[in-house]
Amino acid sequence: MTTTVDILLEKGEAARTAARRLAKLSSAVKDRALNGVADALEAAQETVLEANEKDLEAGRAAGLSDALLDRLLLDPERLRGMAADVRSIALLPDPVGEMFEVRTLPNGLTVGKKRVPLGVIGAIYESRPNVTADISALCLKSGNACILRGGREAFNSNLALTGMVRRAIAQAGVPEGAVQFVDNTDRALVEPMLRMKEHIDLMIPRGGAELVRFVAETASMPVVAGGIGVCHTYVDKSADLDKAMGIVYNAKVQRPTVCNAMDTLLVHSATAASYLPAVARELSKAGVELRCDRRALSMVGNLDGVTAVPAAPEDWSTEFLSLVAAVRVVDSLDEALEHIEEHGSGHSEAIITEDYSAAMRFLDEVDAAAVFANASTRFNDGAQFGLGAEVGISTQKYHARGPMGLRELTSHKWIVLGTGQVRT
Amino acid sequence: MTTTVDILLEKGEAARTAARRLAKLSSAVKDRALNGVADALEAAQETVLEANEKDLEAGRAAGLSDALLDRLLLDPERLRGMAADVRSIALLPDPVGEMFEVRTLPNGLTVGKKRVPLGVIGAIYESRPNVTADISALCLKSGNACILRGGREAFNSNLALTGMVRRAIAQAGVPEGAVQFVDNTDRALVEPMLRMKEHIDLMIPRGGAELVRFVAETASMPVVAGGIGVCHTYVDKSADLDKAMGIVYNAKVQRPTVCNAMDTLLVHSATAASYLPAVARELSKAGVELRCDRRALSMVGNLDGVTAVPAAPEDWSTEFLSLVAAVRVVDSLDEALEHIEEHGSGHSEAIITEDYSAAMRFLDEVDAAAVFANASTRFNDGAQFGLGAEVGISTQKYHARGPMGLRELTSHKWIVLGTGQVRT
Repeated sequence: MTTTVDILLEKGEAARTAARRLAKLSSAVKDRALNGVADALEAAQETVLEANEKDLEAGRAAGLSDALLDRLLLDPERLRGMAADVRSIALLPDPVGEMFEVRTLPNGLTVGKKRVPLGVIGAIYESRPNVTADISALCLKSGNACILRGGREAFNSNLALTGMVRRAIAQAGVPEGAVQFVDNTDRALVEPMLRMKEHIDLMIPRGGAELVRFVAETASMPVVAGGIGVCHTYVDKSADLDKAMGIVYNAKVQRPTVCNAMDTLLVHSATAASYLPAVARELSKAGVELRCDRRALSMVGNLDGVTAVPAAPEDWSTEFLSLVAAVRVVDSLDEALEHIEEHGSGHSEAIITEDYSAAMRFLDEVDAAAVFANASTRFNDGAQFGLGAEVGISTQKYHARGPMGLRELTSHKWIVLGTGQVRT
Repeated sequence: MTTTVDILLEKGEAARTAARRLAKLSSAVKDRALNGVADALEAAQETVLEANEKDLEAGRAAGLSDALLDRLLLDPERLRGMAADVRSIALLPDPVGEMFEVRTLPNGLTVGKKRVPLGVIGAIYESRPNVTADISALCLKSGNACILRGGREAFNSNLALTGMVRRAIAQAGVPEGAVQFVDNTDRALVEPMLRMKEHIDLMIPRGGAELVRFVAETASMPVVAGGIGVCHTYVDKSADLDKAMGIVYNAKVQRPTVCNAMDTLLVHSATAASYLPAVARELSKAGVELRCDRRALSMVGNLDGVTAVPAAPEDWSTEFLSLVAAVRVVDSLDEALEHIEEHGSGHSEAIITEDYSAAMRFLDEVDAAAVFANASTRFNDGAQFGLGAEVGISTQKYHARGPMGLRELTSHKWIVLGTGQVRT
């Protein structure tokens, strides 16, 4: 039955009920369920691939770009990749139940915190169907129920995937209601879902800037806003130019379509004359278009094989998500810091320098989820930071900042063990 | 000049500007400022007491109750108490700049978190003027600017106090803009303040349930909802009745007007016949009125000197904040757990038992900010839990749960120290 507002509320109730049981499940049961999901992803590929083919056909008919069709595509190899991701989540330590900051007070009370799930996580996301398996698995491992609302392009794939996940977890003894799927992509259902404060404890939007902004502004529950990265790499006058070359190339080229890729290159004027032409040639070999301020353009504009154009004002605040970089020459670390404060989105910012004090000032003063000295911004990622996996990257300061892994999907309660203590 | 919506926005800008500077202040400067505030509270008592007298006169004219007038009253002793509180906040360790969860990854990157202030904290609160000094001091120590909007009854006292605080911190080299006071108690300004997401990072409402609910529902920024405690103490069939007597008496009587005081006493039927009459007599000596279910009433209704009446349905969900307690006899731990799940506000819940498994189940299954075995719920408090001081008690699961001390007023950023690493 297709979801209506009433059914949405029923799904909310069912998720809430499941969440109470999930909070008490042992790690063994949760891991068995996750491994069951991974097995199913490998065993029952036909159902999912048939559903995916329907989405691909509809996508081709609707004239989706090749890039979008590729994001949508599932094949046996991608399904094996999804299964491997789910298995690796099963292998992570269970965050739930962990006791921490425990101490015994002078009055003999033992006081500490115990980690508990948040409850019900909502997710509203766009095309890639692997998000469905990913978020289901992370929520399950952290003891949370989830309500998933994927994009219309991947509707059939998501429906097949969630059906499979629900069957697999139920077989392992996890309440099926733990994973709820909104099987209706009518936009009119999004707002009611964002008002379900009583049923959803945290909302995770994953997709473009417009979606994230809409969810953050509309939702009545807390939202993990993030994923929008206007990221800078500043090459200081004291930079090691070999490191600067490798890092800038990596930050821009290794995977340009993601939020932690470099958008703007800032170069100190003392080093620009030697560094900029060299890096421009390297980036151009990978097909990067440079959008330059006046001084940068004067240094690289006439180089053979380099695509360099004047930057438009909006380029300084744009997340390119493609092989485009803005380039500006600055006269000081202060000017770089000001530029980043004005244009950055608080995601990932890097300095390349051998000057200790410059590195320390940059790390101290830049206000972002992750700040790097002499490393690529591409490392701002849950797996890279050792969290195992992530549901997204938060650029907020409240609750979680940076990659959100299993622990960031939990809360805690205070536990107090007494022997009859009263307060005087 | 009295605050208008335009001036409110200017105060927001000024707080934001001050917050950037505050984030970088050394502990020494912040502590000097806090000690300066404490000195001023002791030295310049006349100004504040004169302003307080105006509020008291207006309060008497408006027919405020003696209890409310007492909450409003400042005298030299209370000012000395406020000064001592501010000095003790100065003595707490500075949370800002602390590095934690630092590790070096196989690729040589050193990755860790560094604690940073949240930015600007808003506070909307009712009568007690000591909240003004308290929140200013906690925000300053944690590197946050604040925008304070106190209740109309304490307007002159708060105006005098914030003026004093601003002068004292400016003398110590802290930007005066760090403490903003909304010198207009027109209710029409509350909603615009709650929409200032760009200027205020976290809103703390302190006051009655109605205020907290309104702020939580209206605010566009995160809100610390809390402070509403419908708190239970469950006396199990295996309780040590001496402990049960001391703890229940303490939880109800020691300070009945606060959120962590007991509201409902649940007693196992196997122990009720011996325990209930005894505890009813003790509570009655302190003037407690008992609102009983049928079985409890049959046991204590006819006792000399005991005030016991039948409970109305709404009594089970009421935060009494006075010498009133609801009393119910239950037949099992399960029944107690169900009652708490249905009626509790997720604040402070206690079990009194010598039965290990009963205690563990209660601690595990009750979903509240603080859960106690064999201790008084009155301990749910920042100072009692060793946090030094608190801005309030959160009953949410997001960001902070339980007493919110200095650390809960901070966020973190990820710091990455590299030597040229790129992602492969």
